[in-house]
Amino acid sequence: DTHQLLLLPGDGIGPEIMAQAVKVLHWLRDHRGLNVELTEELVGGASLKAHDTPIRDEVIEQARHADAVLFGSVGDPAWKDAPFEKRPEVAILRLRKELGLYANLRPAKLFDALLSASALKPEVVRGLDLMIVRETVGGVYFGEPRGIETLPDGTKRGVNTEVYTTAEIERVARVAFELARQRDGRVCSVEKGNVMESGLLWREVVTSLHKAEYSDVTLTHMLADNCAMQLVRDPRQFDVMVTGNLFGDLLSDLASMLTGSLGMLPSATLGAENEHGKRAALYEPIHGSAPDIAGKGSANPLAQILSLAMLLRYSLNRPEDAELIERAVSGVLADGLRTADIAGEGDARATTEQMGEAVLKKMAAQ
Amino acid sequence: DTHQLLLLPGDGIGPEIMAQAVKVLHWLRDHRGLNVELTEELVGGASLKAHDTPIRDEVIEQARHADAVLFGSVGDPAWKDAPFEKRPEVAILRLRKELGLYANLRPAKLFDALLSASALKPEVVRGLDLMIVRETVGGVYFGEPRGIETLPDGTKRGVNTEVYTTAEIERVARVAFELARQRDGRVCSVEKGNVMESGLLWREVVTSLHKAEYSDVTLTHMLADNCAMQLVRDPRQFDVMVTGNLFGDLLSDLASMLTGSLGMLPSATLGAENEHGKRAALYEPIHGSAPDIAGKGSANPLAQILSLAMLLRYSLNRPEDAELIERAVSGVLADGLRTADIAGEGDARATTEQMGEAVLKKMAAQ
Ligand SMILES: CC(C)[C@H](C(=O)O)[C@@H](O)C(=O)O
Ligand SMILES: CC(C)[C@H](C(=O)O)[C@@H](O)C(=O)O
Repeated sequence: DTHQLLLLPGDGIGPEIMAQAVKVLHWLRDHRGLNVELTEELVGGASLKAHDTPIRDEVIEQARHADAVLFGSVGDPAWKDAPFEKRPEVAILRLRKELGLYANLRPAKLFDALLSASALKPEVVRGLDLMIVRETVGGVYFGEPRGIETLPDGTKRGVNTEVYTTAEIERVARVAFELARQRDGRVCSVEKGNVMESGLLWREVVTSLHKAEYSDVTLTHMLADNCAMQLVRDPRQFDVMVTGNLFGDLLSDLASMLTGSLGMLPSATLGAENEHGKRAALYEPIHGSAPDIAGKGSANPLAQILSLAMLLRYSLNRPEDAELIERAVSGVLADGLRTADIAGEGDARATTEQMGEAVLKKMAAQ
Repeated sequence: DTHQLLLLPGDGIGPEIMAQAVKVLHWLRDHRGLNVELTEELVGGASLKAHDTPIRDEVIEQARHADAVLFGSVGDPAWKDAPFEKRPEVAILRLRKELGLYANLRPAKLFDALLSASALKPEVVRGLDLMIVRETVGGVYFGEPRGIETLPDGTKRGVNTEVYTTAEIERVARVAFELARQRDGRVCSVEKGNVMESGLLWREVVTSLHKAEYSDVTLTHMLADNCAMQLVRDPRQFDVMVTGNLFGDLLSDLASMLTGSLGMLPSATLGAENEHGKRAALYEPIHGSAPDIAGKGSANPLAQILSLAMLLRYSLNRPEDAELIERAVSGVLADGLRTADIAGEGDARATTEQMGEAVLKKMAAQ
């Protein structure tokens, strides 16, 4: 039967890199019998411009019914002073929340061919391959009460609430433990339980779940500030990490940057299984909308293309197609092709289009 | 008249490194006419052991009346499962809160002699010298409501509240702008205003204050996740940074680690001026209590000694003594003396005591 994919290119470089992923999809349809129906919709600043909202309810509905969502990126400086609900970012927040996409899987993997692009010394990052599982529908991003109130003297007070329940912590920790079983068998849980009760509960729940069901996995705990340091000092000590929404936001961006090739890194955000054993899922590059280079045709499309590979593997159960893409990406890198973000000093700089075409050619040649 | 200093060595390596700073104080008293009266008290795990509380009220009172507090570090794994109020860390939290120490100044400065200790490439960190101003008495560390409640079904819910008011943001931003005027004239304000209203208010207040009083300083804004990346990618882009309690905790630890020599970095935490134009102030190393090496005599005392130098400069108005210490520290490093934390592969490893003595000898030789 036909797989329904919803494509949400978004803002900035989103549409440019999505176009390359779409080419890959078309190629798979034409040459590998992939049966997909693609629908494309506006989100973020693009949707604000056209519909005065960062995401329309009907797009949320389409996402709910799709087999998977392939997302580009949102964020546009034109809305930087807009009221809260008129921000491009609301699109991704609503998608996560309303589809229940609670586990964001963010691999930080160093591509050997790009070792020199890292700001860290080769001996510190060579072979780096860690996975951060970030909770994405709870914590201080969504807790109530929230808002800005005006005080009697005319000054203001901004409030947000960090909330985590046993159930919310347990389900995301479960994802981390399961992943660890397929990897190096180690989970590091990160919170700030020495000053926050929500962190104390986090640690307690992860510890209990570990004891009850995952004692074959090695579990350690780390405070978030120490973790930020350890990621710089010796990132290869980690296998799988699991943490809340806010810490995960900072730590996973930090971890990605260690690889020196943000433009290469895909991510998956997964929800609960429904009654048919299917998981809601959204795939997106780790990088943002990069408004400074938008429209120049110079963005790196590989994170978007690799996000598509993850989609094929996890949502459409097509591991061979995923591997075909991943090998093609390794191939073009080995050939020395470089977009500006990963180019060394003397390297020629490929355009978005050239990089996409090169991947297609490699796929065809396999 | 006599300066009253309160010494709070704390846990782990705290007492060992404090002992070296005390030697420096005695030397200054004997040779440079420094008129000080030293009082020493227990805090953290040490106080829990002796008095069943992380800090006694009378110690808070002593701190309130001292000219400055020299703090070691707190944290002891023996209390890792203790209830919240029975944690060593509460000592530093209460001191900050009750003395109104709202601005934590954390320099991340690379010592040229230690360039090779950084995990980052020399070309990325050489000459690094940034200053993070972290708010320390507000935000999610202190906001109410907070706690863990049991839900009807027996599961739990952990809550913390992030709160910032105009006044709290303004006073810490002011410290950052003033510092920038004495440095490179640039402030980067960091929040997560795209998802948190408290961050939105943060940005608004910093922007207004800048416009009204500090338009000679260059102000930029950065989201906290991007900031975590930028600190790895190109940390030298920053001069002064100002941010809330929680982001400041992670980002300042990250920034410190970039230097590769955490054991070298001092910090100051300042409160408001009182009616006599005096500021409450606490000085402490950036590193923690390092329980793994406590009692071994191998800890690096330089961060504690440099914290004393900051104390002399900012609280006792003795810049020459501060410089004397700082030159002595540079001197011992130039001589190649290294404690384990900053030693290269073939380097001999000095003990805590040897390092302290070497600093004294350099001071005497100047
Ligand atoms: C766009 C923004 C709301 C989002 C977040 O903070 O979660 C982004 O930074 C991310 O990490 O996916
Ligand atoms: C000890 C702890 C409560 C403290 C904090 O988180 O503020 C420490 O990590 C610091 O940064 O000074």
